[in-house]
Amino acid sequence: MHALSFIQDLAVIMLVAGFVTVVFQRIKQPVVLGYILAGLIIGPHTPPLPLIHNQETVETLAELGIVFLMFSLGLEFNLRKLQKVGATAFVAAITEIVVMVCIGYEIGQYFGWKVMDSIFLGAMLAISSTTIIVKALEELGMKRERFAQLIFGILIVEDILAIGIIALLSGMAATGTVSTGEAVGTIGKLVLFMVVSLVVGILVVPRLLDYVASFKRHETLLVSVLGLLFGFCLLVIKMDYSIALGAFMIGAIMAEAKQIRAIERLIEPVRDMFSAIFFVTIGLMLDPNAIVEYAVPIMVISAAVILGKIISCGTGTLLAGNDGRTSLRVGMGLAQIGEFSFIIATLGLTLNVTSHFLYPIAVATSVVTTLLTPYLIRAADPLSNRLTQRVPGKIARFFDWYQGWLQGEGNAEDRALLAGLYRKLILQIFVNVCLVAALFVAARHLLASPLLHLPAWAGEIDLKKSLIWGSTLLLSAPFLIAAFRKLQAFSLLLADHATQTLASAQADKVRRVISRGIPAISLAFLTILLLALSWPLIPSLKLTLAVAVIVGLLFIILRRWFVRMHYLLQISLLETLNQKKDEH
Amino acid sequence: MHALSFIQDLAVIMLVAGFVTVVFQRIKQPVVLGYILAGLIIGPHTPPLPLIHNQETVETLAELGIVFLMFSLGLEFNLRKLQKVGATAFVAAITEIVVMVCIGYEIGQYFGWKVMDSIFLGAMLAISSTTIIVKALEELGMKRERFAQLIFGILIVEDILAIGIIALLSGMAATGTVSTGEAVGTIGKLVLFMVVSLVVGILVVPRLLDYVASFKRHETLLVSVLGLLFGFCLLVIKMDYSIALGAFMIGAIMAEAKQIRAIERLIEPVRDMFSAIFFVTIGLMLDPNAIVEYAVPIMVISAAVILGKIISCGTGTLLAGNDGRTSLRVGMGLAQIGEFSFIIATLGLTLNVTSHFLYPIAVATSVVTTLLTPYLIRAADPLSNRLTQRVPGKIARFFDWYQGWLQGEGNAEDRALLAGLYRKLILQIFVNVCLVAALFVAARHLLASPLLHLPAWAGEIDLKKSLIWGSTLLLSAPFLIAAFRKLQAFSLLLADHATQTLASAQADKVRRVISRGIPAISLAFLTILLLALSWPLIPSLKLTLAVAVIVGLLFIILRRWFVRMHYLLQISLLETLNQKKDEH
Repeated sequence: MHALSFIQDLAVIMLVAGFVTVVFQRIKQPVVLGYILAGLIIGPHTPPLPLIHNQETVETLAELGIVFLMFSLGLEFNLRKLQKVGATAFVAAITEIVVMVCIGYEIGQYFGWKVMDSIFLGAMLAISSTTIIVKALEELGMKRERFAQLIFGILIVEDILAIGIIALLSGMAATGTVSTGEAVGTIGKLVLFMVVSLVVGILVVPRLLDYVASFKRHETLLVSVLGLLFGFCLLVIKMDYSIALGAFMIGAIMAEAKQIRAIERLIEPVRDMFSAIFFVTIGLMLDPNAIVEYAVPIMVISAAVILGKIISCGTGTLLAGNDGRTSLRVGMGLAQIGEFSFIIATLGLTLNVTSHFLYPIAVATSVVTTLLTPYLIRAADPLSNRLTQRVPGKIARFFDWYQGWLQGEGNAEDRALLAGLYRKLILQIFVNVCLVAALFVAARHLLASPLLHLPAWAGEIDLKKSLIWGSTLLLSAPFLIAAFRKLQAFSLLLADHATQTLASAQADKVRRVISRGIPAISLAFLTILLLALSWPLIPSLKLTLAVAVIVGLLFIILRRWFVRMHYLLQISLLETLNQKKDEH
Repeated sequence: MHALSFIQDLAVIMLVAGFVTVVFQRIKQPVVLGYILAGLIIGPHTPPLPLIHNQETVETLAELGIVFLMFSLGLEFNLRKLQKVGATAFVAAITEIVVMVCIGYEIGQYFGWKVMDSIFLGAMLAISSTTIIVKALEELGMKRERFAQLIFGILIVEDILAIGIIALLSGMAATGTVSTGEAVGTIGKLVLFMVVSLVVGILVVPRLLDYVASFKRHETLLVSVLGLLFGFCLLVIKMDYSIALGAFMIGAIMAEAKQIRAIERLIEPVRDMFSAIFFVTIGLMLDPNAIVEYAVPIMVISAAVILGKIISCGTGTLLAGNDGRTSLRVGMGLAQIGEFSFIIATLGLTLNVTSHFLYPIAVATSVVTTLLTPYLIRAADPLSNRLTQRVPGKIARFFDWYQGWLQGEGNAEDRALLAGLYRKLILQIFVNVCLVAALFVAARHLLASPLLHLPAWAGEIDLKKSLIWGSTLLLSAPFLIAAFRKLQAFSLLLADHATQTLASAQADKVRRVISRGIPAISLAFLTILLLALSWPLIPSLKLTLAVAVIVGLLFIILRRWFVRMHYLLQISLLETLNQKKDEH
């Protein structure tokens, strides 16, 4: 009886998980470590009794753990928050990831491992553990301090970049090579996918959940949320992205729903159950012999993680204009790896591109660095005091000056306002262009799809192309118009800005040139873009002309309507983003 | 990739479940029906696309649905409630189950099915659907009416009896026969198991959960609850009882914990997720061709369920002293089958004792009767009015008299008090005897167990027996003493009661006889019980005498301590039962 043996396995896992969660709370150690340890004890590599009969099914359940972990990470993520964490988080997170990937790769190469193993090792070391840090800061009572807020900001940025890392690794694993063109293409497609699903998702999902919530039944809301979650994961799988990416994205989309608190409350138990299974399974898959065998790499890598993260995150925070003490505290708080490394290690195994020893190394390194995290956070202050005494006066003065310089830059209020305007315009142009590009990519897929059945008279390939091309052009019209208008606004603003310091006569001349030149430049840009996107869809010359004329006519007739449509869409997107969320 | 195909299956299930839950809320039909329909559509028997790749894994998940459904049924169940629902619920539920099992069996035999199929059919028809009834009454706004309260009472009693049915069916399936001795033995063991696990569970589990809750972390509480749930299920599986029984029992035990509301809140999402999967899987396993093929039996059985339940529940309620209108409403409210029938149908398939057509019949009958439930509840009032007009005056007068007679019986206050005393004493004697019996059963298992390693000098079978027998006797001493004292109290009460109506001289004489006879009777009863229980453990004559002397001496020395121990245990049990639960 398959079902029975499975339930027995699950029972053993939940029983030990329940036991260790209590014990580890009691001895005030991270429960995650307890889960891993419990998995190790009941696992197949530990002699007394093989308690798990059907490891494959358990691993399947652990996969669900990843889905729910990433989903609730997405739910906690929030576009507004991203805007607020500011420059520090971006600078520090990017510094950290670049440095750590390089360190990991070099260590792998030093030990003579395969290129792919080295790359995955780099990726494993890149991201710190949200779970562990939140837990440690909570227990030390430091959650509200400034450096903790900086750490949370960095973790948010890390989450997004991690999604990119997962996508990149999947791409590399599929092609087997690491070409720059490939990487740019992968990232481009990924960004396109993320922007489109965020825009469409935020337009659709919160409204849908509003409707579902109107029934006022927990079950309905939960099952709908799960339906959306898994439905989106299905889509993402079909597009060959990882399920972790899908779960995170739909979480980030649902984070904009009014019911976000209710959703979090409903998802929490499900996540806790499956993440417990996930972490126990990590222990299950761990071979103690491998840890003994690879003790040296594990120690080297653990040291590299701790030193590398302290230095890279600390430097990044310092560069972003924070004082030395804060920077050191941020660096020491982030000096560990965790759930993300397991996800990446699992990914490598699932894709069959990494060696088996990478997994125990990731887990062991995580255990070592996690255990040290609370001590490191506590050691940050004394260390910073000692360092301050030893730093030569010159260097200290340089950093004081640097901080002042950075702050001076940011202080002028209208400059900040102007920067905000620029940022907003660039974002809008980018999003609209992405939507247009996505429409054309979809059209190309439609053309190649065997599911498309056109009536007989349109069966010919050129007619098919014209039909698809024409409708895509029409569909993208609202976004093209919007992009054009924003481009114009952007150019005008730039012109104004550029002529501010000129004498008025000169300024007038320049402005005139610009006021004629800008529409031309914008149009040229959009035309080139359109041509590039349309290329695979363009039919024979005659039909091309026919389509162009028809679309052109419709465009002129429906222009106002297109503008209105786009305006309505934009308004409802902003409404959703700005709406008040329900209370905790 | 196994995991991926599994997640795809799950994604499809959750996607359709999310969709139908919203649609069925919108059209105000039971969501459960929607799930089944959705399962049917995506199932392997419905042509367009086979959307589910790995049915076995999905069925495993559905098994988890049963676990969580039964667990939350247990959580809602509560020993106090059982006391309060009173005689009506017991009379009506027992009438219903006996009548429906007979009807089901006869229908099966009429259609020429196997004996086992007929028995399972009877069991399937016995229990009404809590989910459907609660939903229907909620939607009709009748949840607070008296007949609704009676229905809930009957459902609670049904739940317990259903547990017995499941255990009996499992037993029958294992032995393949239906002998009376077998049935009595099975029920006896089941009752023993239930009493012991309730007593031990209520002594241990709520205290444990109190400790766990002191960490004030949702995750810890949830994972511990799941650990206890699955741990107990594991025990139950090892004892060859069904997992449904285990989940229900541990739920009923946790219902006595202070944290019951918090536990319900945490378990709700997990249950909703897995029960959605469970109901969709029921649809998945449904072959529409079978429904067409068995259309006649389905219609006959549906009619039998509706008529049989209206008549049996209605009569039961009437017999328990309710008026005709209420009885009809109760009967019509209970006239459907639901989740329990699926569990029993699944049980039959899992145990490989029923034919495959039973499953679609159960599901189809449930669908038909569920759809009719709201209409039946609404039709009860008009029907009762019409019946009242047509009932001959004589019969109506008889029922009026019957009702009055029943109420007259129950009204005498000191009679009720006395009955309460008797009930309490019987319950206490019963529980203590059960505990003693359980200790001896455990000792017998220990004797046969290969895990028992005694030192070499005790290796001989007779020495082993004496050791085990002696310790079991000592361990059961507190419960034996308690049973003896309660038996004495019971006999004295009975004697007092019996001599109440006698003349005082006569009464004195009788009382004197009784005051000497009673200790003798109680002792004799307990001795016979002890001998019967000890039989397989008794060693050679010499050793028996030695053990008897040693145990006798220890018994005399430790008597006070035994009494104190038992008193403490009893107090802490009652404390747990009477403690206030946390607020919603």
